[in-house]
Parts: sequence; C-alpha cells; structure tokens
Amino acid sequence: MTVEGLDFCGKSTLARLLEGELGGWRVRFTREPGGTPAAERIRGVLLDPRGAMDPWTEAYLYAAARADHVRRLILPSLERGETVVCERFLDSSLAYQGRGRGLGMEAVRRLNAWAVGDLAPDATFYLRVGAEERARRARASGAPPDRIERSGGAFMRRVEEGFEELARREPGRVRVLDGTLPPRELAALVAGELRALGYTRGG
Amino acid sequence: MTVEGLDFCGKSTLARLLEGELGGWRVRFTREPGGTPAAERIRGVLLDPRGAMDPWTEAYLYAAARADHVRRLILPSLERGETVVCERFLDSSLAYQGRGRGLGMEAVRRLNAWAVGDLAPDATFYLRVGAEERARRARASGAPPDRIERSGGAFMRRVEEGFEELARREPGRVRVLDGTLPPRELAALVAGELRALGYTRGG
Repeated sequence: MTVEGLDFCGKSTLARLLEGELGGWRVRFTREPGGTPAAERIRGVLLDPRGAMDPWTEAYLYAAARADHVRRLILPSLERGETVVCERFLDSSLAYQGRGRGLGMEAVRRLNAWAVGDLAPDATFYLRVGAEERARRARASGAPPDRIERSGGAFMRRVEEGFEELARREPGRVRVLDGTLPPRELAALVAGELRALGYTRGG
Repeated sequence: MTVEGLDFCGKSTLARLLEGELGGWRVRFTREPGGTPAAERIRGVLLDPRGAMDPWTEAYLYAAARADHVRRLILPSLERGETVVCERFLDSSLAYQGRGRGLGMEAVRRLNAWAVGDLAPDATFYLRVGAEERARRARASGAPPDRIERSGGAFMRRVEEGFEELARREPGRVRVLDGTLPPRELAALVAGELRALGYTRGG
C-alpha cells in the first residue's frame, strides 16, 4: 500500500506512527525516490537544489529509481509475505511530472511501464492538506527546500490537481484523508482500513 | 551524425582527429552519456564501478541523460546551423541494454521515445574492432574499467552482435568502418563521406 500527497502533507509522520499501530505485522516501510543504494544515488541527483534539468530527464530519473526499488526491494518483500508500506509511488510521478511539469499523465504512465510492470498498490492513502497549512509546516521544519520544492506555487497547484484527479478516477483504490487530523488519529484510521481490506499479520 | 562502437574501438580518437579535418566547419563535438551538467551527474551514477543496479534502471538512466542532452545541447546546436558530432547515441542503448542486458532492442527503443522525439542521426559511423584488439587497447590504456566495462566477455559479445544487427538493418544510415585502420586515415575517410553526404560548413 502507498501513502501519497504533496510535500509537508504528513506522509513520513503517518508512516512512522503506522509502524507502532501495525507492530505485530510483518511490514516493510520504504519510500521513493530511494529505498535501494542505486535509487538513493538517483535521489541525490533529483533533489540537488543546484541541478537544473529537462522535465523528461526528471521523469526518467524517477522511473530509473523506481525500477531498482521495485525489483530489488518491493517484489522480494512481497514474495516473503510482507506488507509493503511505501511513501510515494507511481501516483507521485503522474501528479508531479505528468500534471505539474505538464508532460501528461498518460505519457508518464507509459514511460513507467518497464519500471512497475504489473505491480500496483492495492490501497493508496492520499493525505489532503491545503497550501497554507503546507507552507506553515515547511516554515516550521526549517529545512532548506529541495529542487522539486523550489518549483513554485503554480507548479504545486497543478500537482495538487493531479492528486485530486487520481482520487476521483480511482475511488476504490485511492482513499482521501484529511491530513490536518491529529497524526495518531490518522494512523489508527489507516490501520483500521488496512484490517478492513483483509490485511493480516504477514499477509 | 554519430560515432558508435564498443569500448576501445577508437571513437574518441576519431572525434578528436575529425575536429582537425573539419576545421573550417561549425561543428559541435559531444558525447553520451553526458554533454550537459545534469547528464554528466547521471554519467557518474551509471559508470561508478561500485554501483550495482537493475538493468531497467540502467536503461532509464541513459534515457534520462539523453533527454537533457538532446533538448539542452543537440537541438539548440542544430537550430544554430551547426553540425553535431556525437560519440554514442540511441544505437548504444539498443546494443548495450537492448541486446547486452537482454531487455530487447524494441523495448529500449520505445523506452527512449520521449528522450529522442523524432531526432535521428543522418549518418552513423560504426567502428568495428575485434575483441582481442579491444582487450589489447584496454590493457594499454591502464585505466581501471568502469561498471559497464566490467560486465564480462559474454555481455560484450552480445553488444557486438547488437551493433552488427543495427548495421545490417540500416545500411543506408550505419556505415561500418574498419577500426584498426590508422586513425588519421579513418578521420579523412569520415570527413570525405560527410562531404559526399552534402555536409557543408555550418550546415
């Protein structure tokens, strides 16, 4: 299953708290871009604030990291019977590069075909948080913005529209959550949904 | 136009000597992977001898570097009326990843669609050099092998078959040259062919 949303919507906090909620399960937490040594090196190229690049290069780099992550971490974990909880996956590429950079969601989906194969998350939790609250959290974090976060407000609005469109198009898979709820409440809610979906320890 | 072939077939030497032969022309010499700051950073990830990665990740990284190189260097050069001489291009991806890594030439061609668009070299010079002579040159160079060069003899034989197949399939575009000829003779030969093809100063 995946957790999606814009920067500072609370994905990492949710993943961390879920680790407690799902304590007895065999769960593998991971994130994109990254998760394997090669993908982490690619992450460094992608997020380097000094590095200008063509939008298609950006889309290919996310797919490059994903191909390694899927084949070397996610698929082996699933084969061992683990539940994989992944921060960001293909939906982020569709929203950020497809919609945000204007490459087109369908083109970015086709570009990723060799990275994801027939793997798709059985459930996706999209944390919806408004622009003002995200900006407040970004300031509070004190962290310097990475290359993607520096892309500006109009870019981020397009990304947000992209996530909203994905949620409308696939309501069965993508659950929209109010990302301003208290984090522990969100984690309990997601754990409950996972149990309702038939997730079991190590299944 | 592009210069192609296996490692140590003499591509760089030919490009350097061509620079003299075509002295009066407006020529832009470049190489892949690389040619732009983002593509050079990606080259670093690709050739790092410590970095194991999935073959699809490798194919995506070459396409990522190519997308930046095409849009930020090659197309602007061509629009200024320059002749672009590029060491390695799509053919190398087809031979190394498509055939060498076994991903399939057609899949790698489709994966590269967004990187190359409708750009194709009008002429390609493939430097054919046998395995023994390439091994001799590699030893003489004294340089430690990069990640691709460490892929072994069976891999390199498949790559060679890939280049030979491309030469057979597109005899109009791909000219096969005997890479064991003296370098100056090769450069004069290529310059002559370019003139015969209608290449002119700055055209």
